[in-house]
Amino acid sequence: MTRFALTLEFDGAPFFGLQRQSSGPSVQQAVEEAVARITGEAVTMHAAGRTDAGVHALAMRAHVDVAKTIAPFRLMEAMNHHLRPDPIAVIACEAKPDDWHARFSCIGRAYEYRIVNRRAPLTLDRGKAWQVAQPLDDEAMHRAAQSLIGRHDFTTFRSVQCQARDPIKTLDRLAVRRVGQTVIIETSARSFLHHQVRSMVGCLALVGLGRWREEQVGEALAARARQALGLNAPSDGLYFVKAVYPGD
Amino acid sequence: MTRFALTLEFDGAPFFGLQRQSSGPSVQQAVEEAVARITGEAVTMHAAGRTDAGVHALAMRAHVDVAKTIAPFRLMEAMNHHLRPDPIAVIACEAKPDDWHARFSCIGRAYEYRIVNRRAPLTLDRGKAWQVAQPLDDEAMHRAAQSLIGRHDFTTFRSVQCQARDPIKTLDRLAVRRVGQTVIIETSARSFLHHQVRSMVGCLALVGLGRWREEQVGEALAARARQALGLNAPSDGLYFVKAVYPGD
Repeated sequence: MTRFALTLEFDGAPFFGLQRQSSGPSVQQAVEEAVARITGEAVTMHAAGRTDAGVHALAMRAHVDVAKTIAPFRLMEAMNHHLRPDPIAVIACEAKPDDWHARFSCIGRAYEYRIVNRRAPLTLDRGKAWQVAQPLDDEAMHRAAQSLIGRHDFTTFRSVQCQARDPIKTLDRLAVRRVGQTVIIETSARSFLHHQVRSMVGCLALVGLGRWREEQVGEALAARARQALGLNAPSDGLYFVKAVYPGD
Repeated sequence: MTRFALTLEFDGAPFFGLQRQSSGPSVQQAVEEAVARITGEAVTMHAAGRTDAGVHALAMRAHVDVAKTIAPFRLMEAMNHHLRPDPIAVIACEAKPDDWHARFSCIGRAYEYRIVNRRAPLTLDRGKAWQVAQPLDDEAMHRAAQSLIGRHDFTTFRSVQCQARDPIKTLDRLAVRRVGQTVIIETSARSFLHHQVRSMVGCLALVGLGRWREEQVGEALAARARQALGLNAPSDGLYFVKAVYPGD
């Protein structure tokens, strides 16, 4: 048995989410079926993050255990062959010790959120960003974001479906910058609650639009109540960009 | 009658090309129909370039003549409403003098070609770049490209369907650079022949792969024969990026 660490890039649009579900196609199902076609084995994929429907990944980390003897490069090539036409690619694959776990060994996660701030609808970026027509004050958004840094009860920024035992998380980074018409929000933490990134982005957007005062983001946090949330940003603009492991 | 200059962004994937054709949907047809719905007028769109099926635009310039009195901003907003769900957006619109012509007044055109140089298939960039699995030597490509700069007979790099009277064109710029796994080819000229950019990119890719010597690009040019062409790059990676007009 070999544990293979996979780095996955995917377009989340056609999937009901990363995790396998009865309601429709998932990244997990596609990956497991690709491995099954290669090895004849029923494997279970474990991933660093459980991204929602429509959320993309530039470098999701995951692992599968395979009994068949196969080189990592061969497995990667064969998976990319069998994953077609699904928009999922294995961009790296390596053998890992049995105690390495894509989810439980992960000590850091990073996401990026892309807003295209313009009146015109999206064309080439459709499904890949959130279009916000009114001008956003990205500097005000960045300042407001800093009130969320640190160890807090993030109940306000947590989906009602969130299964985490504890709403207390430590947010390491939440930075907002503008590159032309694109406003990019980068965030990292050891782990996030369900919908946390989209909920934080939604509230920052309200600040950027001038509909919330900068201080209201911290006030929403302090309220520790989902009803204090201003807005949950759509999944289209969210990208899982990095998973960090000890010794990386 | 007001002449409106339009700046169009579009995803070329669903279209049979920019120009109206009987065989299927075109950018021209979509734009003309959007204007007709707003004004009740049958207009003809003229564009700076006649991009092929699958070719994208970040800022194509075009014009339409409209009898109805309407402000440029209103026309742009209404067009963007009526263009949905086609992946075409009007990103700028201004009134121009009657002698300004999107095609005939244009004195410079610029294209960009994007190659993703990796083994894994494309996911988020699918249809938006050419995936080349073998490593490309981008520096050799750049050196080879310089042999095409200047005034030449570009018959080798011209589609057999090209309708231009004269195969002699002056190429101002053809530059190759790498940004991570992406190889970007930028080119500009007063005008290009049909398939010229894709044909030049195809031959440069052969150099990058080591299948052509650098000198073979100049030799292919000197042959002035389509049979001397090495490879026509696919349309997916091609973007019309700029049209230049006097006084810009």
